[in-house]
Amino acid sequence: MNIGSYSFDEFVDLVKSFHGNAAPGVIMGGFMVDLALKNLPEGELFDVVCETPKCLPDAIQILTPNTIGNGWLKILNFGRYALSFYEKNQGTGVRVFLDPKKIEHWPEIKAWFFKLKPKKEQDSQLLLDQIRAAATSIYTIQKVRIHTQFLKKKSRGDIVICPVCHEAYPKNDGETCRSCQGQGPYIEVE
Amino acid sequence: MNIGSYSFDEFVDLVKSFHGNAAPGVIMGGFMVDLALKNLPEGELFDVVCETPKCLPDAIQILTPNTIGNGWLKILNFGRYALSFYEKNQGTGVRVFLDPKKIEHWPEIKAWFFKLKPKKEQDSQLLLDQIRAAATSIYTIQKVRIHTQFLKKKSRGDIVICPVCHEAYPKNDGETCRSCQGQGPYIEVE
Repeated sequence: MNIGSYSFDEFVDLVKSFHGNAAPGVIMGGFMVDLALKNLPEGELFDVVCETPKCLPDAIQILTPNTIGNGWLKILNFGRYALSFYEKNQGTGVRVFLDPKKIEHWPEIKAWFFKLKPKKEQDSQLLLDQIRAAATSIYTIQKVRIHTQFLKKKSRGDIVICPVCHEAYPKNDGETCRSCQGQGPYIEVE
Repeated sequence: MNIGSYSFDEFVDLVKSFHGNAAPGVIMGGFMVDLALKNLPEGELFDVVCETPKCLPDAIQILTPNTIGNGWLKILNFGRYALSFYEKNQGTGVRVFLDPKKIEHWPEIKAWFFKLKPKKEQDSQLLLDQIRAAATSIYTIQKVRIHTQFLKKKSRGDIVICPVCHEAYPKNDGETCRSCQGQGPYIEVE
């Protein structure tokens, strides 16, 4: 079964190239994206919400024009292995999630997903074989409508210079930039 | 001047393909990534913090193995046009930011960055020409050390089934998944 316009093996190679390794989560994500797109009208543009930051966003970025940097992909971390494509003005679309009930018959997928085995005891080839054989059968698709507040494009407003670090930042963030307000990750900057 | 292993024009084509259009921010980001990598030891692996979700993460994802889905790229939204590559155990590395002082001589870059002109009055070709001509000269590089708390890999702990939606979620999130706690973006799910 193909993933988007790629064969399974071609997609695995793309995952290795973009993500750094043939991560099971990204490969499963490929089937999820494929299933979602096949259930949406062709030729329209969709935004996407990804409900986990782990692996799944990369399947989206490999297979669609939606990236984290262009804002057409948003990550809302609910810790669920799910994604929703939706028409950006109306908010109507489809959600696809990895269905726990449907992986009962795929023991290596179940063990990986629920972390039932230490990583070194996982059989990577068997896991990959099961992901390939299961194809889109282990996911469930739903119709969804996204709340209006998530559809609005937030403007950052004016860009001004921070009086502390002298870099540009959105004025709406306060008197100084948020990093200079103490939220930054740096203990030393030279 | 090259960007990574690409010519400027090749990089612009990659940006169009991945990001959907030749966004000035991603192209500038290419020079920023290039500058950072040239100031880090070769052959080591680095994690990266990006201080804005806008455009810059895509330059990182195009040019490095660091992606949002593999966790080697983290976005901490301070609204600053800056990124830091750092050795993932020690937290030492370099930060590169777009320096407001240095764009004074590049009026089209300045107008774009500070949103001084309506978008329709921007001269895209002139902006691109100035970005290319300025190359790495409009960015400043700093040595940084990242706080230990940002270096720790957070484990999600056990994965369990949510009693409301019957999907899998991290047990640490509470009695139900966070979407079922009311944080989800959906108004309808069928």
